[in-house]
Amino acid sequence: MKEISSLIAYRPDVKVVDATLRDGGLVNDFYFQDDFVKALYLANLRAGVDYMEFGYKASREIFDTEKFGKWKFCKDEDIRAIVGENATDLKIAVMADVGRCDYKTDIISRADSPIDLIRVATYLNTIPAAVDMIEDAVKKGYEVSCNIMAISNSREGDLKVALDILGQTPVDVFYIVDSYGAMYPEQIARLADLYLEVAAKYGKKVGIHAHNNQQLAFANTIEAVGDGVDWLDATYASMGRGAGNCAMELLLGFLRNPKYNVYPAIRFIDTYMSKLKEDGVVWGYDLPYLMTGLLNQHPRAAIQFTKEGRKDYTEFYREVVAQD
Amino acid sequence: MKEISSLIAYRPDVKVVDATLRDGGLVNDFYFQDDFVKALYLANLRAGVDYMEFGYKASREIFDTEKFGKWKFCKDEDIRAIVGENATDLKIAVMADVGRCDYKTDIISRADSPIDLIRVATYLNTIPAAVDMIEDAVKKGYEVSCNIMAISNSREGDLKVALDILGQTPVDVFYIVDSYGAMYPEQIARLADLYLEVAAKYGKKVGIHAHNNQQLAFANTIEAVGDGVDWLDATYASMGRGAGNCAMELLLGFLRNPKYNVYPAIRFIDTYMSKLKEDGVVWGYDLPYLMTGLLNQHPRAAIQFTKEGRKDYTEFYREVVAQD
Repeated sequence: MKEISSLIAYRPDVKVVDATLRDGGLVNDFYFQDDFVKALYLANLRAGVDYMEFGYKASREIFDTEKFGKWKFCKDEDIRAIVGENATDLKIAVMADVGRCDYKTDIISRADSPIDLIRVATYLNTIPAAVDMIEDAVKKGYEVSCNIMAISNSREGDLKVALDILGQTPVDVFYIVDSYGAMYPEQIARLADLYLEVAAKYGKKVGIHAHNNQQLAFANTIEAVGDGVDWLDATYASMGRGAGNCAMELLLGFLRNPKYNVYPAIRFIDTYMSKLKEDGVVWGYDLPYLMTGLLNQHPRAAIQFTKEGRKDYTEFYREVVAQD
Repeated sequence: MKEISSLIAYRPDVKVVDATLRDGGLVNDFYFQDDFVKALYLANLRAGVDYMEFGYKASREIFDTEKFGKWKFCKDEDIRAIVGENATDLKIAVMADVGRCDYKTDIISRADSPIDLIRVATYLNTIPAAVDMIEDAVKKGYEVSCNIMAISNSREGDLKVALDILGQTPVDVFYIVDSYGAMYPEQIARLADLYLEVAAKYGKKVGIHAHNNQQLAFANTIEAVGDGVDWLDATYASMGRGAGNCAMELLLGFLRNPKYNVYPAIRFIDTYMSKLKEDGVVWGYDLPYLMTGLLNQHPRAAIQFTKEGRKDYTEFYREVVAQD
């Protein structure tokens, strides 16, 4: 059983990362209004959030810039237009996907960029490419984290090898990523143990990025905090792909460090997130996401169901269970 | 850390209690159509649910029968009209509140009733009255559980005394009840320890009834299962007062006993629960419930906010924080 003190005191090493624009951008193809992004930046500042992820550094060779909003590409000048010199405590992050990013050219020296943290996202089978990206980003002066995605169907042995490889790079943080929203807190506890063991060996930190398919994104996040995980991803009103993420308002309400403040989060949701929902942007827990989560599948079938405005849950269940 | 076997195997002693009509009835004043109730009964049968709670045995002296649907009062004949002789494995439960129930007259001998289980609901300060109700129900032949409500702001010492008193009665099950949705899994683990210790001493079982104010109803329920709690309350689509309860569809998806089956639950929600929502019945996680949960308050202010169709979350936060 966890120490009672962990619910009363706090660990100063905990960092909250706002992933609203990045994971939420997967819902609306990154078409956020500038006033939304500016207000989000201010909300994060006021709420005491540590990092704000603006979106992806996606390749403009691979992705059509006409088909996505600008936060899919996160040009430094676009970030600068929101944050100016960012003379604040709030650090700026972007995500760079292995194989979908021209990092050698698109990520410039940190000294000339508003960005502080590069979040390298990889699958288990692309770890060597992730290592190259990590080394490139560290050389350019950035803080670097690495998200190993879709681990809920990976083998523990493979994961150990991957973490050991990453441990030998200059990466700062390993992330536990429950891409499918398939994991229970007990499983998170065991994964946290594994990640923290390797992290301790190499002097790294551990983070968590959860999805809400089974209404466990927040529960899994606070399970991880109790286990010693320090970097916590959250999004306002849970906005994120499919069932969404750990809700920022829940997380800020839970954390005991007085630097965090839930009121600006509620104000931001009241003014901006409710409007997005009214405008027809759809995300969050629903039966199809529960089903793909239960079955440990990628949520794409459920996302398609939602996009088509379907409501025939029973038929959907038959479809996903019948799949080979 | 919990045994990995607890996620792979199962405990045959686990019982699932469907509280949809009872806790959900608090949302729509117990006005459920007969076809809904009949379909719910069949869904429970098919899903392998162990107990179905029909509603309250409320006093017709205290409550106006014109102002509530029949499941507020749960006359034996009304239950019989749904279940007939109930020659099934699904047992029938009703709740009886201390001080709001004419149990001496309204609860007849089990031999003449379709009801199997009386769920006595009490606050800490009415334990002696609960004891009288428990003894009365056991004498009449019923299984009996006791829900001690609103424990999130009670003192541990008082709770221990209450459990010790209940342990000496013929009650079968003590329930952990997080009425305000204020508790985190770590706190549930500690409470489960306390309840289970007393339960072991007196040969009782322990149950949990959770609320979803912080999206933790399911998480708290599976935390409790992992700790050794056997009786689990859930409602279809989380229907219940305020933020609602642990979702039946999540719980059935989690439990490993092959007697449980999530498909009938999905079918019932698809056909019946979605319709209730379309008809304007409102429940479920929303910011005001998060706030009362965080502040460990009764959800009544949040329920009022929802009833009035208010959307000014920021103002609501100011109101509840400013309260003396």
